[in-house]
Amino acid sequence: MTVNLGLIGCGRIGQVHADSINANADARLVRVFDPVEASARTVADRFDTSWTTRVEQIIDDPGIDAVVVASPTPTHVELTTQAVEAGKAVLCEKPIDLDVATVDACRERLGERTDRVLVGFNRRFDPSFADVHARVRAGEIGGLEQLIIVSRDPAPPPAGYVAGSGGLFKDMTIHDFDMARFFLGEVVEVTAFGSNLIDPGIASAGDIDGAVVLLRGASGALCTITNSRRCSFGYDQRLEAFGERGMLSAANQLPTTVRFSGAEHTEAAAPYLNFFLDRYTPAYRAELAHFLAVARGEVAPSPGFGDGRDALVLAEAAGKSLRTGAAVRVDGSVAGGSAA
Amino acid sequence: MTVNLGLIGCGRIGQVHADSINANADARLVRVFDPVEASARTVADRFDTSWTTRVEQIIDDPGIDAVVVASPTPTHVELTTQAVEAGKAVLCEKPIDLDVATVDACRERLGERTDRVLVGFNRRFDPSFADVHARVRAGEIGGLEQLIIVSRDPAPPPAGYVAGSGGLFKDMTIHDFDMARFFLGEVVEVTAFGSNLIDPGIASAGDIDGAVVLLRGASGALCTITNSRRCSFGYDQRLEAFGERGMLSAANQLPTTVRFSGAEHTEAAAPYLNFFLDRYTPAYRAELAHFLAVARGEVAPSPGFGDGRDALVLAEAAGKSLRTGAAVRVDGSVAGGSAA
Amino acid sequence: MTVNLGLIGCGRIGQVHADSINANADARLVRVFDPVEASARTVADRFDTSWTTRVEQIIDDPGIDAVVVASPTPTHVELTTQAVEAGKAVLCEKPIDLDVATVDACRERLGERTDRVLVGFNRRFDPSFADVHARVRAGEIGGLEQLIIVSRDPAPPPAGYVAGSGGLFKDMTIHDFDMARFFLGEVVEVTAFGSNLIDPGIASAGDIDGAVVLLRGASGALCTITNSRRCSFGYDQRLEAFGERGMLSAANQLPTTVRFSGAEHTEAAAPYLNFFLDRYTPAYRAELAHFLAVARGEVAPSPGFGDGRDALVLAEAAGKSLRTGAAVRVDGSVAGGSAA
Amino acid sequence: MTVNLGLIGCGRIGQVHADSINANADARLVRVFDPVEASARTVADRFDTSWTTRVEQIIDDPGIDAVVVASPTPTHVELTTQAVEAGKAVLCEKPIDLDVATVDACRERLGERTDRVLVGFNRRFDPSFADVHARVRAGEIGGLEQLIIVSRDPAPPPAGYVAGSGGLFKDMTIHDFDMARFFLGEVVEVTAFGSNLIDPGIASAGDIDGAVVLLRGASGALCTITNSRRCSFGYDQRLEAFGERGMLSAANQLPTTVRFSGAEHTEAAAPYLNFFLDRYTPAYRAELAHFLAVARGEVAPSPGFGDGRDALVLAEAAGKSLRTGAAVRVDGSVAGGSAA
Repeated sequence: MTVNLGLIGCGRIGQVHADSINANADARLVRVFDPVEASARTVADRFDTSWTTRVEQIIDDPGIDAVVVASPTPTHVELTTQAVEAGKAVLCEKPIDLDVATVDACRERLGERTDRVLVGFNRRFDPSFADVHARVRAGEIGGLEQLIIVSRDPAPPPAGYVAGSGGLFKDMTIHDFDMARFFLGEVVEVTAFGSNLIDPGIASAGDIDGAVVLLRGASGALCTITNSRRCSFGYDQRLEAFGERGMLSAANQLPTTVRFSGAEHTEAAAPYLNFFLDRYTPAYRAELAHFLAVARGEVAPSPGFGDGRDALVLAEAAGKSLRTGAAVRVDGSVAGGSAA
Repeated sequence: MTVNLGLIGCGRIGQVHADSINANADARLVRVFDPVEASARTVADRFDTSWTTRVEQIIDDPGIDAVVVASPTPTHVELTTQAVEAGKAVLCEKPIDLDVATVDACRERLGERTDRVLVGFNRRFDPSFADVHARVRAGEIGGLEQLIIVSRDPAPPPAGYVAGSGGLFKDMTIHDFDMARFFLGEVVEVTAFGSNLIDPGIASAGDIDGAVVLLRGASGALCTITNSRRCSFGYDQRLEAFGERGMLSAANQLPTTVRFSGAEHTEAAAPYLNFFLDRYTPAYRAELAHFLAVARGEVAPSPGFGDGRDALVLAEAAGKSLRTGAAVRVDGSVAGGSAA
Repeated sequence: MTVNLGLIGCGRIGQVHADSINANADARLVRVFDPVEASARTVADRFDTSWTTRVEQIIDDPGIDAVVVASPTPTHVELTTQAVEAGKAVLCEKPIDLDVATVDACRERLGERTDRVLVGFNRRFDPSFADVHARVRAGEIGGLEQLIIVSRDPAPPPAGYVAGSGGLFKDMTIHDFDMARFFLGEVVEVTAFGSNLIDPGIASAGDIDGAVVLLRGASGALCTITNSRRCSFGYDQRLEAFGERGMLSAANQLPTTVRFSGAEHTEAAAPYLNFFLDRYTPAYRAELAHFLAVARGEVAPSPGFGDGRDALVLAEAAGKSLRTGAAVRVDGSVAGGSAA
Repeated sequence: MTVNLGLIGCGRIGQVHADSINANADARLVRVFDPVEASARTVADRFDTSWTTRVEQIIDDPGIDAVVVASPTPTHVELTTQAVEAGKAVLCEKPIDLDVATVDACRERLGERTDRVLVGFNRRFDPSFADVHARVRAGEIGGLEQLIIVSRDPAPPPAGYVAGSGGLFKDMTIHDFDMARFFLGEVVEVTAFGSNLIDPGIASAGDIDGAVVLLRGASGALCTITNSRRCSFGYDQRLEAFGERGMLSAANQLPTTVRFSGAEHTEAAAPYLNFFLDRYTPAYRAELAHFLAVARGEVAPSPGFGDGRDALVLAEAAGKSLRTGAAVRVDGSVAGGSAA
């Protein structure tokens, strides 16, 4: 069954979703919205669809089954709420909002209808991370005891971006918090160290540009997250799950399998894929496929609304640990959600 | 500029090409042909296009710019000739024919118009092999001295297939002969050993199911090819180019980057991609993109008609070496073609 | 110049040192001591030397230049002090003591003569870790920003051992604290999470059997340490140093380069070396070579007495963080020592 | 039981053996011989033993149980014969001789006493190659079908060396011929291509500096050997054994496990060990241990005299193929020897 989709937001991430929709035989992009006409028009032309600068033309269109919310973060809650209330399934980009209270108010208003909302933690759909997760759940390593996540961006964002980003934990680490919850289930304690070694502009904006975070799961499993806003050798995205009977790890992606050996060094590979869109293209496509199933009512969304909320709670806890120097207990309500 | 394509042959490889056409925004599949109506209809439905069981409806259609010839090998020369004479660009699956004389007659008839024919040696377009080739040509390893090609299929073909295949050298090794020429340029000498260790049915059909082949290039560079019709761990496709200043190698493709370490073994990856369609999907897509450029008249085809012919000459030479036990000098006419 | 050595303690680690001495052409094992005559005699026979059950016969022997103190931890300070005061160079096994005050008292008593004491943090001499360290110091990755240390033992020690070990941080992590200081120099802040997922006997003994620790260096660099008392796939000892211009990593050691590919998995290696003596044999030998140079007065010991003391301070800080849940600032006196 | 050894020849390879003897607790180096007094004296001093310039003082010394013949190739047969007739076990360096007839005459003369002769094909004792061999014999990959051997030296030998070396096949490939027989057992057919791309001085001396060789085993298994006298990235020594149920491969040795990732490339290792003595130190030590067991009469030598002879036959066959362009059938007498 073809799902008819509307796209809200024609920026970089919106175009990623348009591209996934275009490549999926079961999805049809009906209309795209952007407040800037030129942006809307350009994307519409590229994907051979219609466009609008009035968001109601997506929200209220009965011919549209599902909506991708890829607009700026402060608009996520309002647009998601409207679209859900208009009967649509929603793929809401991360984070849902920068404020837990706002997210909780949205949850209260939507009630059970939050199960129509998929949150855009695309890494759960990365084939390697998903394979590690499935095999851990299948018991291949016995009980999960330790999780090591490394996540480094190739280059820091512009200073202007940092200001409105909510800070490293809510902007970048939030993906890793979701990944930690995906593996650990309920997280009960967080502690964090931050650093400013890369970009003075980030420090001036009151944010950190590197961090290490420790998490404790309710099961007793421990997790470390290592983040950096700069990585000379590309997009560094790795994960190791260690358990009683073994370890499963996911390494970085190389563009080819080619290796060079010469007088200076041997077995050298190319730099890693540099840009998150290249690195995670298969993940975005698999995420869309899951969203289509959600829109058709076939499956519950995972990561769901609660997962988006709980990752945000962990980001706040990490921020508090950073300020106080103490480990922060996390309220029991940050439960496993759809993580299990 | 959109190129309008016709597809001749709706079997497995024909569907691969249909899929590539479907995924390419610059290509449009206008009509598919198969003598079996059910086959034609099924593929047409799947790709939302029209079908025919009369090949003239493709050859003679002025709305079709380019034709993919994916029919059985004995029909390649006739259909390619007709399509070229009807003014179309042709992507002809390998081998052009099993008989060098037939190929030479076609070449004489088409003359310069052979430069409208791209031959389906898809591996030249594999991102890893193409990267090694480009870097060798750029001088990264100095002069090329030795080339090691390993090419093993997951499982032997049905006995019925072997009978009409032209034998291992013309059916399977022909890809490696083209790869050898792609790297070495002109090949001047061939010697080969064969074996029958896998499938008695192949021996009964008068063919071998394993082989090692040595090639000598005009430059003095040497090459080994190792083939097997069976490989327990998947599709084994590797290559090493060794030169004065270093070595570039292309390894097998893994479906993910996941590795498992446990009490029995460490750093274990999954089996390799098993099927040539999975392994070479990116290659088929890049091949089509090159074919579109050929169809538009922008570039000369590589591998061209001459490359298809010369790989066949090497296959015949290998067969002769197998029968005689002697190395076979190859006629100077097996020149570099578009290999350089 | 041959260095004449005495060995105090003929247990497992004492025998490791005897073996290194035996393999070094510049070292001569003059006498071994153990309070248990059978132990002393056995080791003496194996290495063709003399033995004693009276430690004075080593401490007071003018023919002995240097002493390896490989006795139980509670005796380290007293024996090291006596040997230094008798004019000998000392290689003191880690930890110097379980109590910082005792170590500080020893330091005060020995004064400048502490520069005759090498502390047995053998991992600094591991060829791979030493190579990473040298290249980081040489500036190959620019400023060091993040360090990831993974250190897992194959199997938990007997419950009886745990009781007297000083706990995970002073017994096992102390190696990693020294490694962290080796790379970061001065460490200013520590926080830690522990877990009990492996051996209930360890929990009963009041200790943890897994841990993750965060360290902050004075330079702002951050470090994570991940420890486990059990690892199904062998002795897991790895390290990554990440900086502005790149990353240097040291992986686990494989007994051979052999890999197996089959229908179940591909590229599988053997389990890692299981026992610390196999894993670190080259390190123990290089450590001895350095100790001989110390004994000859050619170089200052690194890791020196201060390094042994400062690693212990970090272990105490980690223990305090574990109890309080807060990050612990480390006194400025935990300076870089010979780490630079 | 300690074995008393005499060493004949104090050149580079003689010193390697002296070093292995020195490191083995069960071996005692009684005397070293070299016609050049300075050489004999230097080695004797280094290993704290006696020396002579009269070889009878080794051959006729009843206190010497076993002799290592590491003198120039033309003296191997005579000295080996004398030593065996004097009742000693002999480790004879490769090749036994450059002439098969001379070797056969020696075999006839010694008769059953050839089982006192171990031939110095050290690579059989390399831990990785030995592990692959043992696992192939244990059936881990099912029947062996294909063997790929790559063997490249870092740099060509001096022209003077080449002249007396017997040529690439008898000097360098002979190791690979032995390795092929070690895996394949009886070899029945050989064909070879050579090249001169590296050193004009080698061509002037009438030799080749690169080669590819095909071998066919009596079992039907096929083997390729790729040789080069120059390799920019070190000593390239690899092997792959492919069978019905899988593949076992042995890769190159790296000095450490350190990898570097930066803006230019990722996962780069150091160049390989450059010199055969570093690469094969463990192999030489294991070879000596086997020789001690031979000397004690505990085991038959493997590789034995027949293995030394049969590898030479393959080298001659390859040379003949090179000259004639034809595959060369090998006489049935080149049987498996101790290869199985």
